[in-house]
Amino acid sequence: MFSCWLSRQYWGFSTPTGRIAHLIRGSLSRTLVLSSQRRTPEFSSFVARTNTCGELRSSHLGQEVTLCGWIQYRRQNIFLVLRDFHGLVQVVIPQEESAASVKKILCEAPVESVVQVSGTVISRPPGQENPKMPTGEIEVKVKTAELLNSCKKLPFEIKDFVKKTEALRLQYRYLDLRSFQMQYNLRLRSQMVMKMREYLCNLHGFVDIETPTLFKRTPGGAKEFVIPSREPGKFYCLPQSPQQFKQLLMVGGLDRYFQVARCYRDEGSRPDRQPEFTQIIDISDMFRNTEVEFLQDALSKPQGAVKAICISEGAKYLKRKDIESIRKFAADHFNQEVLPVFPKASRNWNTPVAQSILEEQRSGLIRLMEIQEDDVVLLTAGEHKKACSVLGKLRLECADLLEARGLVLRDPALFSFLWVVDFPLFLPKEENPGELESAHHPFTAPHPSDLQLLYTEPEKVRSQHYDLVLNGSEIGGGSIRIHDAELQRYILATLLKEDVKLLSHLLQALGFGAPPHGGIALGLDRLICLVTGAPSIRDVIAFPKSFRGHDLMSSAPESLPPEELKPYHIQVSWPADSEA
Amino acid sequence: MFSCWLSRQYWGFSTPTGRIAHLIRGSLSRTLVLSSQRRTPEFSSFVARTNTCGELRSSHLGQEVTLCGWIQYRRQNIFLVLRDFHGLVQVVIPQEESAASVKKILCEAPVESVVQVSGTVISRPPGQENPKMPTGEIEVKVKTAELLNSCKKLPFEIKDFVKKTEALRLQYRYLDLRSFQMQYNLRLRSQMVMKMREYLCNLHGFVDIETPTLFKRTPGGAKEFVIPSREPGKFYCLPQSPQQFKQLLMVGGLDRYFQVARCYRDEGSRPDRQPEFTQIIDISDMFRNTEVEFLQDALSKPQGAVKAICISEGAKYLKRKDIESIRKFAADHFNQEVLPVFPKASRNWNTPVAQSILEEQRSGLIRLMEIQEDDVVLLTAGEHKKACSVLGKLRLECADLLEARGLVLRDPALFSFLWVVDFPLFLPKEENPGELESAHHPFTAPHPSDLQLLYTEPEKVRSQHYDLVLNGSEIGGGSIRIHDAELQRYILATLLKEDVKLLSHLLQALGFGAPPHGGIALGLDRLICLVTGAPSIRDVIAFPKSFRGHDLMSSAPESLPPEELKPYHIQVSWPADSEA
Repeated sequence: MFSCWLSRQYWGFSTPTGRIAHLIRGSLSRTLVLSSQRRTPEFSSFVARTNTCGELRSSHLGQEVTLCGWIQYRRQNIFLVLRDFHGLVQVVIPQEESAASVKKILCEAPVESVVQVSGTVISRPPGQENPKMPTGEIEVKVKTAELLNSCKKLPFEIKDFVKKTEALRLQYRYLDLRSFQMQYNLRLRSQMVMKMREYLCNLHGFVDIETPTLFKRTPGGAKEFVIPSREPGKFYCLPQSPQQFKQLLMVGGLDRYFQVARCYRDEGSRPDRQPEFTQIIDISDMFRNTEVEFLQDALSKPQGAVKAICISEGAKYLKRKDIESIRKFAADHFNQEVLPVFPKASRNWNTPVAQSILEEQRSGLIRLMEIQEDDVVLLTAGEHKKACSVLGKLRLECADLLEARGLVLRDPALFSFLWVVDFPLFLPKEENPGELESAHHPFTAPHPSDLQLLYTEPEKVRSQHYDLVLNGSEIGGGSIRIHDAELQRYILATLLKEDVKLLSHLLQALGFGAPPHGGIALGLDRLICLVTGAPSIRDVIAFPKSFRGHDLMSSAPESLPPEELKPYHIQVSWPADSEA
Repeated sequence: MFSCWLSRQYWGFSTPTGRIAHLIRGSLSRTLVLSSQRRTPEFSSFVARTNTCGELRSSHLGQEVTLCGWIQYRRQNIFLVLRDFHGLVQVVIPQEESAASVKKILCEAPVESVVQVSGTVISRPPGQENPKMPTGEIEVKVKTAELLNSCKKLPFEIKDFVKKTEALRLQYRYLDLRSFQMQYNLRLRSQMVMKMREYLCNLHGFVDIETPTLFKRTPGGAKEFVIPSREPGKFYCLPQSPQQFKQLLMVGGLDRYFQVARCYRDEGSRPDRQPEFTQIIDISDMFRNTEVEFLQDALSKPQGAVKAICISEGAKYLKRKDIESIRKFAADHFNQEVLPVFPKASRNWNTPVAQSILEEQRSGLIRLMEIQEDDVVLLTAGEHKKACSVLGKLRLECADLLEARGLVLRDPALFSFLWVVDFPLFLPKEENPGELESAHHPFTAPHPSDLQLLYTEPEKVRSQHYDLVLNGSEIGGGSIRIHDAELQRYILATLLKEDVKLLSHLLQALGFGAPPHGGIALGLDRLICLVTGAPSIRDVIAFPKSFRGHDLMSSAPESLPPEELKPYHIQVSWPADSEA
């Protein structure tokens, strides 16, 4: 618990004052009214202020108030606009000789200095009201003022319309946090997480349990940070997720667990792992006898497939140069050929390959993909996964192009959720397709209908994994887990050829009466991003790391002298010049 | 979110069912009724069970129920007691030929196996009610049963009265968690934290903000774990507390912040840092002209003092051998002499030194310490801090002795809070008493009345640090922080001779309009310990580390092969034999 504007008199633990708070609707209720069912929190308990800057209205006329805030700007040494997280309020600087010291304080303090003022709420003179400002009907006639802290020259102005570079924002994060947008994002995040907790704890009896972050490496967990201990050669690691602990809690009878957990993934040079989820349609069979060379090529390979997406009204709104730029994008970024087809369009372009689409293929596409007038189909071929990736990306590219032409495809106020289910339990290993690896992780339970296939055709087994997608972005995933020790051992040892010794504690735990169990994890950063419409997850985190994992404010990570590494029995292996 | 007993039909996100939950008072309301003001959570939403084992009462008679739980024990193949977190319930195994398969399942499943049963709630036959069991009026006549998971032979029985070693409990933590006591502790902890969040967020508008755990080292932070990054020679560290970030949030206008934060302290070989807080009285002046040699000795030194505590009714309840064992304890553990004085006792012992206490000293003690008939005073002398430590320890020793004689001194149901204030801002460095170090940390603000002393006699300045003590244990501490950049720079550079470059980002932030601010941090583990009466903080943490920082279940920390250290550019420096 940490707060500012403390008044020594009020400070300490106390029971709620019972004071009736005014219903405030302002910055916090812009998109989601989260606190509609309860009274507004008492923002001025424990502190020297009587009110926040943003809450004063005509109903406060005549009240003596004490406000604390930053000086937003000053006009002609007569008016001052004071700001706190709740909003702005106009303050009238006294001009009388007897108030010379108050005037001096308020006129000399630089912008963004912190002041405390006391005075009376009065009406603005007729005609001087500002309807754009929630506090625009009133102003505060100051009697006393105190400069709490003076501000030096700032690297940028605290105004939302002043554009700053990302690096400058991160370097002076504590100033960037004063912006309306960052205040809104972080406060909304806090309220959303609180709502989730209330739902889970208070309504459904879930138990909030912290699991350790100093743990041991999970098998194959190449993305886990290591932490040297004081025992020579012994290391902890920071877990990627509370994976094993949550299963052990189920075995331990804490049958409804949740946690807002920190997950540590050392992504190294792969900062953008965001998987893309696409609805695509496999039309390989239709093109078995095609004359188009790159389709032929793809279908001759074992994992090869022909895939297509339909761009609704693409023939009407996309120009030839748009289609060309899409094809170039696919060639440059994915080394993939893409073929545009206009199955029902009155308008068409005479591309040489387009001629090679047979009439029965064209009518097949229209039937299978429910093609409408003016739709365009983008067709690609190649290894299944790659073909899916490129079309997923092209779908987003086309949406951008169509929206630039004035179409509204994605309503930012609409939240569309989607469950993705029936994932395969195993995938062939990339480096050795004869062997299997887990599609997600080895603890996912097989689909009950496919249980027998485990012993005959394991590659065909579906899993009980599920992903949750919001507006096209994956926001969470989870699974029903294996609770049978023998099944878990069979999958680990026989099918995946893993060393079961590393997981002996989990196998043992499953053998001691583990109940059937499952769960889900939501990616909080991304979810809040989608809800607030923030362009980057860095805008919903108070102190984010840069793209390369640096803290631009404090310059972490940093060099340490060898003597500080000595207690941990490690030394730096400097790379040879050729490696560096 | 993770839970067990899932039914596939009900699983997923849904709105609360609106079903009226039964008011349950049971295990969770043993000491604190935390959920008295709201309805009980719906523990059986989303899952296959209709009720928990512990909630069934006469009011459920005739209801068809589905229960899931562990087999606690079985009697004569007729009765089964089923357990979940909520309690125990007796289940009647059907004996009819037509239910042979159900009987087989329930009679053959080993104890601690997981079963699901469906049946009817019926009255126990007259005379067979069990008034000691909350569900003792009823039993469930089973119609169908399913073995969800069988249990192997356990390393210990899941019964609270079965004593286990700490090491065994930690190795099989997931079994230990099934005990009533651990379920109670962890569920109460979750509810207490939730109440704190509701108070801070919903009532007082605090914002819950996560601060980074991969940060840079703080100056002098020798107890911070280091984490190698993929950049050669560059390290993050795990912060001991969100120290700097919370101040930066204040500068950033998030003026009411809290966080349930993980703090990482690499305590190495000092696992018990718990400071002792004692009320003592300094009686040095009274003994300036004493004849007692060890008092004379102590007072002749610059930091020397004579200190005393009063043991109420000690002369009545403590025996001569008790006093002797106390003196021996002080001599053995602290190398301190202790002198017992009986200022008003009718009974007395003729110790040689006791004769040397002058009459005016005796009456002085009676006046200053408000001595009652039968009180005994323990007197010691020496360096101020050491004398305080020994008396603090002796006070607890005497309390143990008196309680063993039948006195009730410390009511376990009573919560006594105490604020400790007016700490010194600086202390002389132990290794070099001519220089100063911070008593807590260099960001603590000086007491406003002592501000001028900073420039003349800094060692006399009091701080605005405060500690919160519950039943004699420190449960939290905090301070008003310095918000003036120049004052902070003066204390760091001039008084403490620290390298200010390491904190340039903080000094810069203070200069950009930092509001006055302060806060407090509570030690959650210790607080929950005191509330639940748990003997160790390991009993209020789901997966604690052992005394030496080991995870006995998974055996972390562990050895890693050199190739896994390569991406982090470190190698192990094995200690030479002589060091090991």
